[in-house]
Amino acid sequence: MTLTIEDARLYVRLGTHYRQAIRQGTLPPGARMPSVRGLMALHGVSMSTALQACRWLEGQGLLEARARAGYFVAAAARQGQTPRLPPAHEPAVAAPVDAARYVGVHQKVSSVLERALRAQVRVNLAGAVAAPDLYPLERLRQASLRVLRHHALHLVTPSLPGGEPSLRAALARHALEQQLQLRADEIVVTHGCTEALTLALRAVTQPGDVVAVESPTYYGLLQILESLSLQALEIPTSPHTGISLPALREAAARTPGLKAVAVIPNLQNPLGAIMPEAAKQELLAWCEAQDLALIEDDSYASFYDGPGTLRPIKSFDRSGRVILCSSLHKILAPGMRLGWMTGGRWQQRLEMLKYSQSRPNEALAQLAVADFFKAGHMTRHLRGMRARLAQQREQMAEALARHLPRESRMSLPSGGLSLWVELPEGSSSEVLFEAALAQGIRLAPGAMFSNSMRYDRFLRINCGLPFDAQLREAVACLGRLLAPQRAHL
Amino acid sequence: MTLTIEDARLYVRLGTHYRQAIRQGTLPPGARMPSVRGLMALHGVSMSTALQACRWLEGQGLLEARARAGYFVAAAARQGQTPRLPPAHEPAVAAPVDAARYVGVHQKVSSVLERALRAQVRVNLAGAVAAPDLYPLERLRQASLRVLRHHALHLVTPSLPGGEPSLRAALARHALEQQLQLRADEIVVTHGCTEALTLALRAVTQPGDVVAVESPTYYGLLQILESLSLQALEIPTSPHTGISLPALREAAARTPGLKAVAVIPNLQNPLGAIMPEAAKQELLAWCEAQDLALIEDDSYASFYDGPGTLRPIKSFDRSGRVILCSSLHKILAPGMRLGWMTGGRWQQRLEMLKYSQSRPNEALAQLAVADFFKAGHMTRHLRGMRARLAQQREQMAEALARHLPRESRMSLPSGGLSLWVELPEGSSSEVLFEAALAQGIRLAPGAMFSNSMRYDRFLRINCGLPFDAQLREAVACLGRLLAPQRAHL
Ligand SMILES: Cc1ncc(COP(=O)(O)O)c(C=O)c1O
Ligand SMILES: Cc1ncc(COP(=O)(O)O)c(C=O)c1O
Repeated sequence: MTLTIEDARLYVRLGTHYRQAIRQGTLPPGARMPSVRGLMALHGVSMSTALQACRWLEGQGLLEARARAGYFVAAAARQGQTPRLPPAHEPAVAAPVDAARYVGVHQKVSSVLERALRAQVRVNLAGAVAAPDLYPLERLRQASLRVLRHHALHLVTPSLPGGEPSLRAALARHALEQQLQLRADEIVVTHGCTEALTLALRAVTQPGDVVAVESPTYYGLLQILESLSLQALEIPTSPHTGISLPALREAAARTPGLKAVAVIPNLQNPLGAIMPEAAKQELLAWCEAQDLALIEDDSYASFYDGPGTLRPIKSFDRSGRVILCSSLHKILAPGMRLGWMTGGRWQQRLEMLKYSQSRPNEALAQLAVADFFKAGHMTRHLRGMRARLAQQREQMAEALARHLPRESRMSLPSGGLSLWVELPEGSSSEVLFEAALAQGIRLAPGAMFSNSMRYDRFLRINCGLPFDAQLREAVACLGRLLAPQRAHL
Repeated sequence: MTLTIEDARLYVRLGTHYRQAIRQGTLPPGARMPSVRGLMALHGVSMSTALQACRWLEGQGLLEARARAGYFVAAAARQGQTPRLPPAHEPAVAAPVDAARYVGVHQKVSSVLERALRAQVRVNLAGAVAAPDLYPLERLRQASLRVLRHHALHLVTPSLPGGEPSLRAALARHALEQQLQLRADEIVVTHGCTEALTLALRAVTQPGDVVAVESPTYYGLLQILESLSLQALEIPTSPHTGISLPALREAAARTPGLKAVAVIPNLQNPLGAIMPEAAKQELLAWCEAQDLALIEDDSYASFYDGPGTLRPIKSFDRSGRVILCSSLHKILAPGMRLGWMTGGRWQQRLEMLKYSQSRPNEALAQLAVADFFKAGHMTRHLRGMRARLAQQREQMAEALARHLPRESRMSLPSGGLSLWVELPEGSSSEVLFEAALAQGIRLAPGAMFSNSMRYDRFLRINCGLPFDAQLREAVACLGRLLAPQRAHL
């Protein structure tokens, strides 16, 4: 049974409605879920939509199917009783922002990475990476085999500037789901979002310039700023609604040399924040008024499992102000290194920079992924992956609430691979990192996500791995390690 | 029959000896070649070496096998009578070099590329690119299939920093043939030599700095300089012995901000020049004394079909002064975008820049090529490709000599994909480019290879395609187009 995109939207909408009812206790554990026919009558949906909604809830561990009796709210779904950490704090927006500074995270980040590589790691909570079995390995393999069977000549012929037309067309079609209207030839295929971000920053800045970023933000972005001798202006960012526009405006007024704003508006890494559409439009209008480039990293939007879809800021852009950078790394194939971008008014310059920096990407991976898209597998894959990630996030959140000190805080984002945890006053994630590593547990300390020392009390926790006893035990171990830290208070 | 590397060296040495004899007319067309037993006795070589030498000469069209009678000098090998253009001029070294300048080739290069893309091209003489059938497509395909059969998990797992260990080990082993001692972990796999050059320049310069380059040089290098806001100091370069060291020394003394020298010492593009070993060592010592980085692009060395092998400057480097950049694009697989580099004292910085610029290369192409190396196919492939390129170069050189105006000049390099042709006074390769394009013939005008207007009287001609009637006719057409240009004199 193939669902169209419209169907998909509908069943997620329906499922979300019932998820809320379950979480709020309106439908308590053990309660009978309306039957499929009941759902059809109540909501005027088709049988397939009703069924998909139930399966989606089942996939998240909220419903259980009982033979011949239908669906019931799962015992484990006692949302009322499920322990939950209190929600994350909003950042202090009133306090003045640090002045723009040259970035020096590389030393810190690579010493963390290197110490972790030298250690015996049993449990890796550090990455923002999903387990291999959340990806459609066999379909990608078959697509790659088909390409080698029919298009092997690409191995020995130079690849095309901008990327393979079939992949660019597939990406343009896929972008339509996010209300993004792009022609295939406006898309440049890159080596991951990382290369796209590098090209975007090279296109709009010179060394010494200032770029405003969210605080905290993805350390890879900070490393790129550092490698290009750019200064970062870190703007307080809400774990719920993203970058603070008042703080940005205020800081910009005091900052000469500001050339660009680089944000991750959808499911921000590490916060999981989602900018409301009005804020996206406001940021865009402000960048327009200030004549700043707006660089948008949209690598995670497809992981959103709330109702509807998340629009990139680019979808509101009428003047070519936004450079959109994205990736198939997280959502489809971590081993294929495929990213893409579209550059608005900087498109020509970006094409030149891509060509002079690394030439077009090799063709085979592009053709295989185009084949995967063409066969219509993408929508279904994402649906399944979102459901599994939602379940893993829930399970991890519950374990953290059970085992971390009660003064810890965390908000559960509506998608993505990670959780951002605030530890109680007096804890240090650097100290915890060392102690956990000695136990074979790898962590991503908060300090990696900023050019300041502001986030030593935070941790980013990976939820990409299927939750199991070992993960639970690792979280329990973190709780034990944190207890003595707090005893010093 | 598998030849060891030692054998391979020996048979090329032997073959080169007889090639010279044939070219100089010592062995005229129709003459009988010494028999295999004769060669064994005369030169003290094994039967396999003697046989390979004869086949190598046969592959170049210099010998013909006659059934049961042995090898004879081919009728077409009348080197004495083969028309040849007079050798290229040495550059004027005494004249003062242009001051260092910001590079602005991109507009010129891309307008040439774009006009060519819009035209109906029948014959492409513009690239530095070999025909697909000069590459081991089927073996690469089989290797790729094997990787997908056994290591498909790499499609969905993040790739390793620095590159796949098996490829790095294979490249290190291969480098031994050039007397280059590298550990596998000193090699960083990149997206082509282009990315390697970008990283090398990013590692050792800041915008505004000056880089000394050969004049003429590969336009891709100039585009990288331009995209990084670097200045080029163009140094006169001999078509035979490469960059002029006296001119370099003299220009450097007048140039503040010089940070690096970037050269292609082996089979330079576009000249085909080869720096003598003494010059390589002298350049290295001078860079050491001046505290300049020496960036070496060695993409073409494996195409050398003279005796012995060409050593990269890196093989003389004891202090980590040289950043070596290389590629498998030209010599093995134009569609796989695999390059590599090793960075001496800048190794750590290069690893950081590679990671922050594009993350490690995807694994599959790397594993397939490692498999190809491991199966021992590389040496044999290169031997065959060199022989075919040598023949194609000879045929093209002969056609050019027959059809271009007699005042044209050209030296035949000892390997590689291209010929660098000097047209008679009063000709313009830009004008010729337009006229030829109207006839469906695509050219690479000399102006692309410099940041000055110095090379409008030069053309780079591709010899990567099997020589056929269409190519011959295209060359004849160039001759006809050049005639009226010269009538204006
Ligand atoms: C926000 C964000 N952008 C970009 C990347 C890297 O993208 P890619 O692997 O496609 O280069 C990551 C990976 O962690 C990320 O979290
Ligand atoms: C001297 C030289 N270096 C580098 C390159 C490009 O290398 P790659 O295709 O590996 O990026 C070329 C291609 O023409 C070249 O001639």
